[in-house]
Amino acid sequence: LGALVRELHGAGPLSRSELGMRTGLTRSTVRALIGELATALLVTEEEPEPLGTPGRPSHLVRPNPLRPVSLGLEIAVDSIAGAVVGFGGDVLQSLRVDRPRGELSLDHTVADLAQLAARLDRFDEDSAIGIGVAIAGVVRRADGVVALAPNLGWRDIALSHALRQSLGTMLPIHIGNEADLGALAEARRGAARGASHILFVSGEVGVGGGVIVDGRPLNGIAGFAGEIGHMPLNPAGSACRCGSVGCWETEVGEDALLARAGRERGGGRDAVASVLHDASSGDERAQAALEHVGQWLGYGLAGLVNVLNPELIVLGGLFGRIYEQIADTVELRLDRYALADARRLVRVVPAALGEDAPLLGAAELAFETFLGDPAAWLRPRPALVELATA
Amino acid sequence: LGALVRELHGAGPLSRSELGMRTGLTRSTVRALIGELATALLVTEEEPEPLGTPGRPSHLVRPNPLRPVSLGLEIAVDSIAGAVVGFGGDVLQSLRVDRPRGELSLDHTVADLAQLAARLDRFDEDSAIGIGVAIAGVVRRADGVVALAPNLGWRDIALSHALRQSLGTMLPIHIGNEADLGALAEARRGAARGASHILFVSGEVGVGGGVIVDGRPLNGIAGFAGEIGHMPLNPAGSACRCGSVGCWETEVGEDALLARAGRERGGGRDAVASVLHDASSGDERAQAALEHVGQWLGYGLAGLVNVLNPELIVLGGLFGRIYEQIADTVELRLDRYALADARRLVRVVPAALGEDAPLLGAAELAFETFLGDPAAWLRPRPALVELATA
Repeated sequence: LGALVRELHGAGPLSRSELGMRTGLTRSTVRALIGELATALLVTEEEPEPLGTPGRPSHLVRPNPLRPVSLGLEIAVDSIAGAVVGFGGDVLQSLRVDRPRGELSLDHTVADLAQLAARLDRFDEDSAIGIGVAIAGVVRRADGVVALAPNLGWRDIALSHALRQSLGTMLPIHIGNEADLGALAEARRGAARGASHILFVSGEVGVGGGVIVDGRPLNGIAGFAGEIGHMPLNPAGSACRCGSVGCWETEVGEDALLARAGRERGGGRDAVASVLHDASSGDERAQAALEHVGQWLGYGLAGLVNVLNPELIVLGGLFGRIYEQIADTVELRLDRYALADARRLVRVVPAALGEDAPLLGAAELAFETFLGDPAAWLRPRPALVELATA
Repeated sequence: LGALVRELHGAGPLSRSELGMRTGLTRSTVRALIGELATALLVTEEEPEPLGTPGRPSHLVRPNPLRPVSLGLEIAVDSIAGAVVGFGGDVLQSLRVDRPRGELSLDHTVADLAQLAARLDRFDEDSAIGIGVAIAGVVRRADGVVALAPNLGWRDIALSHALRQSLGTMLPIHIGNEADLGALAEARRGAARGASHILFVSGEVGVGGGVIVDGRPLNGIAGFAGEIGHMPLNPAGSACRCGSVGCWETEVGEDALLARAGRERGGGRDAVASVLHDASSGDERAQAALEHVGQWLGYGLAGLVNVLNPELIVLGGLFGRIYEQIADTVELRLDRYALADARRLVRVVPAALGEDAPLLGAAELAFETFLGDPAAWLRPRPALVELATA
């Protein structure tokens, strides 16, 4: 059942025969299991159109986009966002609200999120599997505590607890690092669909990474894996917000780009857009700044290619937006610094889901409970029983 | 059955009740499965000693160290080696023969290995599960081709084919990178027993890594993962044998240590021993060379801690031999360059299996077939049928 549900969630509507092929289940098993899902209102089945050829066409199985649903939330550096995603991957509703950058209190943030969630009227708690939250910070996997979110000035923050109070919900709340969740979303719905060894690199002020190894997220012993922005790469480099020196993000993060282009640090998305604009108009300082980021990006990626041997590198956030300007430089650095055998096998592509990748990944994170154990949804739930007896 | 066999291979003799606890199988299932293994001569059962207390003591189940066995082979930079390992992990026999360093032909090498294997008279092909080979090079997982072994001057070498001819065997031959196999051995029998997120870092002339994520080796898309010696770390560094510049191994490999200590490159183990000796006698140049290696080792490890969030770093080869002299420096570098949360959770230890780790890992690699599908050994094998009918 789990395999069927996973296929339907990943691919959307599929014919019974296709489901059989993808899961290796027999025709009669597929029919029986789909019957159970249909009874629980999790899928609908459509009579096939006659083919006009011999052989019976196969029923089309369509996941019910309203059951279950999940709520994805994101706490980014300069915005918060929410999305309601249905079984099968439809984004039913989504909303993003800009916020000023800088240190923001936990209370303020969860209140803002509750206000935003209240506006997502397609979210129905009775049909919901859970809530996922993406945050630009280091998240301890065991208890969802935000160990460190330098952009927000947070350290050891019990986010899920505060969010539960603020949202007034009993649903499970899962917290994840934005780059890890961006990787999950790109792997399931974006540029890395079908790939199993993926490195997702997302840059803004900070640089984060999400690594997928053999189809599974690389978490490390406590969920701190993928903090690639803090690989020390330049012994002669500058101080990093993390307390170290010469971290990768001090060379490729947004502030490095802006400072080299003669802009003020902290200028955000608009300032980056203006660097891109000036570079295309021939401004040499802006061009040199992009070249610098491209060179150091490729340099760091080369090391990760040697360590991880991925098939695909997906560039998100800032790197996705400047991808066209830096792609050639990045490829040349990979040629120079990565081992030939691993280098030959890796492709570099921009993210397909844009800035919403972490948000959609948060919604996918909440779906994992359902995909891992869909049988729980075959039993009548209290809310439905109430409805039925009303 | 697979779970039982894996426990017995990993831990050696266990009581029936311990096997039940470790596998979660019921008492009667354990008894039945152990019965099948005993009939196939894979285990023996010992009557328990009376405890003198109420309750029946549990039978002790002992893996048969002679059935199956595997042959591990190693092609190191300056030696070749072989070991016969039995079910349960006993090393029945092992042998290492020094060879001159430098480029060596494939023909020469497989002939030497065949000669060495012929001297391992405890190896009985009829009871053998297969042959594993550890090599200081980059191995393509799909077909066991050695893509690159710079110390031997090899590129795209079909080692298993040549070895099969030379050994005249029909047994499966599995090729693996020496650091990957060192990690496997240390995880199963050495310093990393019981850990699930492990970084094994082994240094000689080259520096290799074996990464274990959630108990499973990190291979990457084609088996090239773990080439940590070629992370570019020093933009102002020197040329590497791989064609790149400033790779980690140019700062921490054996030649870097020897050159900084005023020795000739390529001096090998004896030269390293003399650097250690001189340093302990107060030779400042030797001390500075060790300090340099310790600093760069810690610097590179810090980046890998941030990327992988391991619980254990095992230092093997050269790094294991100089561990005592560099441990403090390495720890200080980790404090300085790794993120606090990941850093707190990681311990650095020297390898426990010494230079034999890759060799024992090769033997373990060959065992994987048996551990994955022990049932094949419950059926009578042609050789045994012959014996029985003779």
